[in-house]
Amino acid sequence: MKKEEYDVVVIGSGAAGGGVARKCNSAGLRVAVVERDGWGGVCPLRGCEPKKIFADTAHAVTRVRSMQKQGIVGDTRIDWDTLWNYKHTSTEPISDAVRDSLEKAGIAVIAGDARFDDNGDVEVPGYGVLQARNVVIGVGASPKIPDIPGNDLLLTSDDFLNLKTMPDSLIFIGGGFISFEFASVAAAVGAKATILNRSDRVLRGFDPDLAGRLVKAMESHGVSVLLNHSIDEVEKSKSGVSIVTSGENGKESFSASMAVVAVGRTPNIESLQLDKVGVEKSSEGIKVNGRLQSTNPRIYAAGDCVEPGLALTPVAALQADTIAANIIDDAGEESDLRGTGSTVFTDPPLMAVGLLEEEARERGESFTVYSGDAAKWSEHKRIGMDYAEYKVLVEKQTGTILGAHYLGQHAEEVANIFGLAIRYGLTRKELLAHPWAYPSFGYALRYMLS
Amino acid sequence: MKKEEYDVVVIGSGAAGGGVARKCNSAGLRVAVVERDGWGGVCPLRGCEPKKIFADTAHAVTRVRSMQKQGIVGDTRIDWDTLWNYKHTSTEPISDAVRDSLEKAGIAVIAGDARFDDNGDVEVPGYGVLQARNVVIGVGASPKIPDIPGNDLLLTSDDFLNLKTMPDSLIFIGGGFISFEFASVAAAVGAKATILNRSDRVLRGFDPDLAGRLVKAMESHGVSVLLNHSIDEVEKSKSGVSIVTSGENGKESFSASMAVVAVGRTPNIESLQLDKVGVEKSSEGIKVNGRLQSTNPRIYAAGDCVEPGLALTPVAALQADTIAANIIDDAGEESDLRGTGSTVFTDPPLMAVGLLEEEARERGESFTVYSGDAAKWSEHKRIGMDYAEYKVLVEKQTGTILGAHYLGQHAEEVANIFGLAIRYGLTRKELLAHPWAYPSFGYALRYMLS
Repeated sequence: MKKEEYDVVVIGSGAAGGGVARKCNSAGLRVAVVERDGWGGVCPLRGCEPKKIFADTAHAVTRVRSMQKQGIVGDTRIDWDTLWNYKHTSTEPISDAVRDSLEKAGIAVIAGDARFDDNGDVEVPGYGVLQARNVVIGVGASPKIPDIPGNDLLLTSDDFLNLKTMPDSLIFIGGGFISFEFASVAAAVGAKATILNRSDRVLRGFDPDLAGRLVKAMESHGVSVLLNHSIDEVEKSKSGVSIVTSGENGKESFSASMAVVAVGRTPNIESLQLDKVGVEKSSEGIKVNGRLQSTNPRIYAAGDCVEPGLALTPVAALQADTIAANIIDDAGEESDLRGTGSTVFTDPPLMAVGLLEEEARERGESFTVYSGDAAKWSEHKRIGMDYAEYKVLVEKQTGTILGAHYLGQHAEEVANIFGLAIRYGLTRKELLAHPWAYPSFGYALRYMLS
Repeated sequence: MKKEEYDVVVIGSGAAGGGVARKCNSAGLRVAVVERDGWGGVCPLRGCEPKKIFADTAHAVTRVRSMQKQGIVGDTRIDWDTLWNYKHTSTEPISDAVRDSLEKAGIAVIAGDARFDDNGDVEVPGYGVLQARNVVIGVGASPKIPDIPGNDLLLTSDDFLNLKTMPDSLIFIGGGFISFEFASVAAAVGAKATILNRSDRVLRGFDPDLAGRLVKAMESHGVSVLLNHSIDEVEKSKSGVSIVTSGENGKESFSASMAVVAVGRTPNIESLQLDKVGVEKSSEGIKVNGRLQSTNPRIYAAGDCVEPGLALTPVAALQADTIAANIIDDAGEESDLRGTGSTVFTDPPLMAVGLLEEEARERGESFTVYSGDAAKWSEHKRIGMDYAEYKVLVEKQTGTILGAHYLGQHAEEVANIFGLAIRYGLTRKELLAHPWAYPSFGYALRYMLS
């Protein structure tokens, strides 16, 4: 079997692996990247990019529909065929482009399924063995399929993004951000969308009061959100599929043309043979220290395959920067993700950054809650956004921000601003004294914190 | 004549005066506010609020029109009558509501035209004389009318906001933010809009390269922007008005249904009799020190009537906070406006915060320019925004941000983020290491600074 030597072997070419590879290569190290699927990873191929193409389109159409009372007229709608083709032609060339760009930079690009061998090297069946001082694992995660009868009838998020025809009706199983985002898109296109959630709490990781308000917004767009429905079985039905659930009302059954399952993601680490190199893992992913080293210090891990995972592109990108610094300069750099926000790109979008109220209470923090209705702000009224709300947790002694939660326009940018405040310890008083642009949703911090 | 005694007399009820009045009143001081026009000032009545109702509507419609290639179909348009009524019913009640709210809080509200008398008191003809330890001047500014023949045929920005019928064609005189914003609205509604600018540089205060790119975006929306046209005369014409200009091509004449002049604003200080109290002023406004005291230390001034003016609502609001602190607690607080950005709400919007490139060069700063085309970002491609660009000035030694300039979606929030960076001395490296939400235009700082 062919043997090759590198300074760094990277398994996975997404935001995590690709980032490390490029930085190490630029620093003069010999780098190989092994990829078993599309080059570039989930974000550009089956994640953020295609979903945001759909979400931005849905948002634009929802906006003009919600502004009819102020004079926007016309029957604006989405032609799915054209939108899907736009998405396809946008994302389809990415894999080849990423591969070519890595190769052109001088990185060895190897297609195949990597695993560790008995010598601690990386073996790619059908290619050879790759030896390296450092190995970086950035293999990502894949949709979790529940172990229930008929689960082969379920679509995943990957399948939804590749739906050439938008069906009349869709059931989304699981009440996380993927179901919420995709149901918003389906509803904007004109499909009947239903979300089935096992517990009474959707969108874990986000403030439950604001998530409840978002459910109302979703319902105003025609999406049904049903709580406390545990999925037992999937069956074929006349209309397509039938989902059998149990819950407060006993057995129930819901039919739709298609059903998409989005109940979490599993790290793609099973086939890596991590036990051969002493890399510890859990069902949540690879265990790493602050420097992002696994329990085998020459092996690093980053991105969605790491436990405990914040499966976010910016996290993967920053982890890549940290690993690269540690490999190139032996910098001993610790990953610092303070101020990382999450956003659900619904209409309105919902964000969370810092602590949840319940987390702050558990930690025994002493804090003031600034919360209220944001739908009455003129900023929301004039775009016809009827559901908006905020909750900010301010530490009593210092005035610093413990957590910020906001459902409303520009939520992702408000997350950025509060994220900076959390990371750099800016106080409520300092945020009130900032000359925010007006009108803007940054300026709305003055409303939120007054 | 009736005499009344207060702790604080405030002249003007806008963001500046109203803000001081409320804070001083809350602190237990006896406060009177004198207003000669609408209560609440320019921002809610004839400025930000009504213009943003129009701008948000134009933006929403422009967005779906620009996204046709990705499947948004339908003939979306603006019914001006409905929009104007929505604007009117939104802004019309504000004056009474502000007046009532001040009164309910226990503030004396006095309608009238204030001026200083020989004793240094505030005289309101028809009402009486108001004596106070402190006087705060927040009288704002009004549209400047050029001294040319036929100038009575010109409309002002106030008139544009009250146009019950959108004419077929409009000429905007002056290439500042008001003309750009209103021309965008007029074009989105379907009017033929032309901007005539005296010099070859539009949008002073903004980066000229980005302003030039915005001109191209405006032209793509059907707006004509003509440079080097000095206005000599206004005449009646068959279609409405005719504007006679001189410039490189000699005398020219442009006809339209109406013409709106927006060549700057003049502080409303002429009738105050400032000489009676030793308050110095220029044609730009009242001179103040860092604490916002005029040359008569018991008299403060804030907002658009102050020289040198940053005529922005957030500036007025923060100046109000500073004055209130200085009056209530004798805090000796200095106004700190570092990080104040300006935004033009066109499509795309344009922002500037910190130094212009030319200012940085004049000051002899040593800096690196990070600039480039932002239209190629997927964030802009997928919303059909074909004109976008950025320029960021990074100090060489420290890596801090000297100035940031950006034409593109969410410009106002990007101004907020760079404003925070400027105010708190965050470095390029720190901004690159921040876990920005993805996708977001905060995350785009990573593109801008790489």
